[in-house]
Amino acid sequence: MLMQKGTKGASLDMPTGSTFKERLAELAAHPRLERPLVLVGIAVMVVGTLPEMSATYALVLTGSCLSIAAAFAILYAVRIWSSEHRAMAARSPAAIVDLLAAAPIPLALAVGASAADARLLGILWALKLIRQNPAFALVLRVLRSERQPLLSVATAFLVITLFASTLAYLAERQAQPEAFSSIPAALWWTVTTITTTGYGDKTPISFFGRVVGGSVMIAGIGLFALWAGILASSFSAELKRRDFLESWDVVVRLPLFRGLGSAALAEIARLLKVENFAPDTPIVRAGQPGDSMYFIAEGEVAVVVGDQRIPLKAGQFFGEAALIASAPRNATVVAAGRARLLRLDVVEFRDLASRLPELLAIIHSEDSRRKPGED
Amino acid sequence: MLMQKGTKGASLDMPTGSTFKERLAELAAHPRLERPLVLVGIAVMVVGTLPEMSATYALVLTGSCLSIAAAFAILYAVRIWSSEHRAMAARSPAAIVDLLAAAPIPLALAVGASAADARLLGILWALKLIRQNPAFALVLRVLRSERQPLLSVATAFLVITLFASTLAYLAERQAQPEAFSSIPAALWWTVTTITTTGYGDKTPISFFGRVVGGSVMIAGIGLFALWAGILASSFSAELKRRDFLESWDVVVRLPLFRGLGSAALAEIARLLKVENFAPDTPIVRAGQPGDSMYFIAEGEVAVVVGDQRIPLKAGQFFGEAALIASAPRNATVVAAGRARLLRLDVVEFRDLASRLPELLAIIHSEDSRRKPGED
Amino acid sequence: MLMQKGTKGASLDMPTGSTFKERLAELAAHPRLERPLVLVGIAVMVVGTLPEMSATYALVLTGSCLSIAAAFAILYAVRIWSSEHRAMAARSPAAIVDLLAAAPIPLALAVGASAADARLLGILWALKLIRQNPAFALVLRVLRSERQPLLSVATAFLVITLFASTLAYLAERQAQPEAFSSIPAALWWTVTTITTTGYGDKTPISFFGRVVGGSVMIAGIGLFALWAGILASSFSAELKRRDFLESWDVVVRLPLFRGLGSAALAEIARLLKVENFAPDTPIVRAGQPGDSMYFIAEGEVAVVVGDQRIPLKAGQFFGEAALIASAPRNATVVAAGRARLLRLDVVEFRDLASRLPELLAIIHSEDSRRKPGED
Amino acid sequence: MLMQKGTKGASLDMPTGSTFKERLAELAAHPRLERPLVLVGIAVMVVGTLPEMSATYALVLTGSCLSIAAAFAILYAVRIWSSEHRAMAARSPAAIVDLLAAAPIPLALAVGASAADARLLGILWALKLIRQNPAFALVLRVLRSERQPLLSVATAFLVITLFASTLAYLAERQAQPEAFSSIPAALWWTVTTITTTGYGDKTPISFFGRVVGGSVMIAGIGLFALWAGILASSFSAELKRRDFLESWDVVVRLPLFRGLGSAALAEIARLLKVENFAPDTPIVRAGQPGDSMYFIAEGEVAVVVGDQRIPLKAGQFFGEAALIASAPRNATVVAAGRARLLRLDVVEFRDLASRLPELLAIIHSEDSRRKPGED
Repeated sequence: MLMQKGTKGASLDMPTGSTFKERLAELAAHPRLERPLVLVGIAVMVVGTLPEMSATYALVLTGSCLSIAAAFAILYAVRIWSSEHRAMAARSPAAIVDLLAAAPIPLALAVGASAADARLLGILWALKLIRQNPAFALVLRVLRSERQPLLSVATAFLVITLFASTLAYLAERQAQPEAFSSIPAALWWTVTTITTTGYGDKTPISFFGRVVGGSVMIAGIGLFALWAGILASSFSAELKRRDFLESWDVVVRLPLFRGLGSAALAEIARLLKVENFAPDTPIVRAGQPGDSMYFIAEGEVAVVVGDQRIPLKAGQFFGEAALIASAPRNATVVAAGRARLLRLDVVEFRDLASRLPELLAIIHSEDSRRKPGED
Repeated sequence: MLMQKGTKGASLDMPTGSTFKERLAELAAHPRLERPLVLVGIAVMVVGTLPEMSATYALVLTGSCLSIAAAFAILYAVRIWSSEHRAMAARSPAAIVDLLAAAPIPLALAVGASAADARLLGILWALKLIRQNPAFALVLRVLRSERQPLLSVATAFLVITLFASTLAYLAERQAQPEAFSSIPAALWWTVTTITTTGYGDKTPISFFGRVVGGSVMIAGIGLFALWAGILASSFSAELKRRDFLESWDVVVRLPLFRGLGSAALAEIARLLKVENFAPDTPIVRAGQPGDSMYFIAEGEVAVVVGDQRIPLKAGQFFGEAALIASAPRNATVVAAGRARLLRLDVVEFRDLASRLPELLAIIHSEDSRRKPGED
Repeated sequence: MLMQKGTKGASLDMPTGSTFKERLAELAAHPRLERPLVLVGIAVMVVGTLPEMSATYALVLTGSCLSIAAAFAILYAVRIWSSEHRAMAARSPAAIVDLLAAAPIPLALAVGASAADARLLGILWALKLIRQNPAFALVLRVLRSERQPLLSVATAFLVITLFASTLAYLAERQAQPEAFSSIPAALWWTVTTITTTGYGDKTPISFFGRVVGGSVMIAGIGLFALWAGILASSFSAELKRRDFLESWDVVVRLPLFRGLGSAALAEIARLLKVENFAPDTPIVRAGQPGDSMYFIAEGEVAVVVGDQRIPLKAGQFFGEAALIASAPRNATVVAAGRARLLRLDVVEFRDLASRLPELLAIIHSEDSRRKPGED
Repeated sequence: MLMQKGTKGASLDMPTGSTFKERLAELAAHPRLERPLVLVGIAVMVVGTLPEMSATYALVLTGSCLSIAAAFAILYAVRIWSSEHRAMAARSPAAIVDLLAAAPIPLALAVGASAADARLLGILWALKLIRQNPAFALVLRVLRSERQPLLSVATAFLVITLFASTLAYLAERQAQPEAFSSIPAALWWTVTTITTTGYGDKTPISFFGRVVGGSVMIAGIGLFALWAGILASSFSAELKRRDFLESWDVVVRLPLFRGLGSAALAEIARLLKVENFAPDTPIVRAGQPGDSMYFIAEGEVAVVVGDQRIPLKAGQFFGEAALIASAPRNATVVAAGRARLLRLDVVEFRDLASRLPELLAIIHSEDSRRKPGED
């Protein structure tokens, strides 16, 4: 009852659209198309600010930037057109990023900005790099779940910075009336010091100013350590969560585990790790030490013994022989097409005996059904 | 017997005072009133040190600072007056912070300090930012519980700094008699180096001095990593403790869990996470993937299906359908007023089957009592 | 059978020596005697390098340093004389630190060094600060248990530094033949850069040199993060180990827990935390929220209700009422003399119901024997 | 059935080759031979770039470098010749590192490079330091398993750097047309700032530029903390995995544990820690507090009681008396030859009573078979 079809992660990134519109939508959303455009675009924009480039190739540079903006405009239009709910799609955060990539440069030229200044708006293309990033959501989750202690440290940062600036201003205003002319001037020194950047454009010279400086440096290191500590402990929980969810989606759809209760399934999902392989990638190599076995979730793999290629299909598994006998792998296994596998590490495999005798039983019953020498 | 009324966290920050005095006390203590005053006050103080501002707007600046000090004096008086034990309230740390915000500026002017100098005392307002910070206690707990290893690293810091200063003084006093004229002078260089601030106002030029310098930098990174390591491992424990206590306070008061023993309650408190929602905030959105279900602890929420708004009251729950079927949410749920919910994440939900069959039984029995399509 | 008398931690730092020799040995070993001497001595030594001090107060400074060295010589002699195995004591690491504190300054003067140079040897007194540090052993344990991965990162550090120095030398030797005249010269730049110290005394100016520089900075941050990560995960284990050992030593000697098996004792030792209190320190305060209960391991405490002081002896406990009823403390409890208590945090207390019904049973049976209103 | 012979870690690094070819192969692969060569070679190469050295000792330097390259060529040839599969061995990553250590310097001289430039290729010897490093695989595993979130933070790093460079260019191009002449010029400033290196060769002077600068510094610290946090949480898991695997390999081969099921074996492998001792190293010392017991996995140890040396062989254990009675060690134990032991820490020993009564039973039955006073 808990193991109905999961929708997430089922597609292996292969085009699944059946109509022209669906295929077009997939194409327009694919990072392989956008990422090179973004990187080339930003490179052109950055290089275009070099005075010698700007002077000689002004037309080429502006033309390139306009072309890239146009390409993003087309992608944006295709996405809106091919989505089911067009009004909703047009207002999504993704669409706003698309719009910011397409519109600003032509608009700036239209309202009379210089070509050199208009090209600078190409920096907005960088926003697309963030949107495409799969693990970005994980980082955001961590920051959100610990925002209270993180903000607390940030407040301490602010208060220490304000106090230190005031004290440094008091200590140094006699000796260096230029460098520490006011608290705002001292703030710049405090920020470069508390972050341990230390430009050295302003340094305290009085005894009391140096005591303030040393204290600020040590406080900066302490605050930073607090930040790192908060993030480290939270990341640990989120990484486990992500792995479990990914694995659960696959485990519940494997016929192999159909007979197990949801308690055993949750245990298995915790132990297995999802791994994707491109076609013809070796998964295990003959002769290497074996530290994991694999269950095939999707796609097909081939066991290479000499010249023979024995195919294994979704639902089957391999690599258990090396784990049971602690011997090196006796065959190479390659992905026949794109394949999604569940990896069971040797540590967890040995752990199983006590925690999940059901899984061991499944492996042994399957093993006895198969011919020897296959693994 | 373990689940009597909790007092902490029960009020949702809504005014609960029944008499005028109580309401006034609440108002005077509210951060929404104080925080803007503090921020404006500090901004005025900081800007007022700019020579051009100080010269032109001296009267306005001093007037503003005095007004803010006066406002804090009034808040302080109200708080003392409205508290039950006035003598105790007047000596509490909070009252001392209040006093430091109100008294120093007028006092300084009274004893004849210049207006510009008196305004600098406004920096004391920053102390209020720390007092208002809810997670500050958490940070302090971590620092206190690990003070022994933290001090141990601090001692290593001190010893290394002293040795390095002596060695740098020996190495550089011939070559740079100005910059490294004494150990105190070398200390300044060592501190800027061991914290990796590196102003560059003094740098070693002899071979031996540079060996000392490089060693100090690497030692600094190592000490800092030790600090971060100690804090990280301790934060992990404290964050779990905080979540458990917060959740326990709410769980024991939910009628839904009344039949469970305290072992099961402790388990549930570990699994659930308290979340507060402002009125009309969406909690789940139709069409989005569902990764958690919610129990209503306080307040009311509304399930929006088409034009209908079905109310759910404290003690009820929602969102379990998406978890059980791994389907997207079939309805949007918004907070009707201020609402305190307990979130059960999908990972913990799947974990339940093995660890807490009682909770699943409660969910299923409630589910069968309700009409379908509500979630 | 596992709970025979522990020797460690039993003494509460009170003088236990019965003979004059033993008491003298304790006195000579006490940090309260040595630490001020060390700090004063180092302060004199540091200040004595200031040219103006050195010129005016040469005799006073040298005299002070010699006096402190003499004091350490006396302490050293007392320690050797009062120890049972004098030959062994004289060769222990502690004795070598003692000797390094006493001998070098007079020796240096004897062989004809200038007084100013001889005083510099006072830096060796700083070694005593490390020896006195109780948590230093913990830090050393962590460093030792993870020395392999730490060294591995250090090797990466070395290899990256060497490659970067060679590349920076190649990139910059044309443009800045002075600053990057050789690989050793480039090494200094690389070390200040990879540790992100960044003095700025040498900076790359060629395009390729800056690419090397940027890569080195990012590599430096990565290596440092690796270091912090290794230390953080190891510290977590060591801190738990230390708390368990400390608590176990006390738990096995409490008559209250005599009937429990060693499994339950191990569980209790994991839950309780040892805390020491100086005489007359308040342990809990009436009216404050109660987040822990206490078992008295050694010494005596007094419950203050109004004017009455009800004494509680070792083996008794208090504070459980506030935990059970979630109410504020109804009495203040102070340490009557030096007291060693075991603290049971509210989180662990609630956890108990499921894991250690025996402990709850002990608390309840004791509670019913006592009169109400005591807590 | 899960406890067949493990191959890894069985040899204690003692020469096991029986034929001349095998012994030669072992010799050629031994780090004790290569490491000094590498370190001397790199030292010669580095020192050789000092102008005064290069001028005076050109021939000696080039000769040394050629000799070292020749030595590596011989080692490379021996390794290929002595390996079973010569074609495979010649293409392995190790062989490529060998080749890069042997060939480049003579090749460079052959194609006409100057001797000074050819010697610089000696930096490639540093690659060998990485290959020899045993814990390097652990670091790589951590980096690989968390590459997604690490890359995610790196992308954020890139995007922030690009935005900050553009903004700094806009803010400062009027005031400092030299330092911030283009975005590539501003990029150098941003990278030195976001990594908190802060050379100070370029610093913002406008108000807006300083706001950008401060934000970049704080973002840099945050990104770095994220990195450290990701690595810390992942290291924890990998370190546990490594210890378990190492211990498992030894535990399954101990006759003492033969009767136990694989669940108990996995539990024991988690509790024990492998430690290697060189001949005649003391393992425990009489009179010291005992915080662990030892099982002998390989080699022999000797219990020293007075003048007697009682030998203990593989499969036996010692040190349990100190753990059971919490008394100091009553005998010194030294490794008779090279010995591999399994250490059981006191914390885990006390934990055992509840989790693994079988192991305690084994210890007690062995104990009663032995004579008293041996430990």
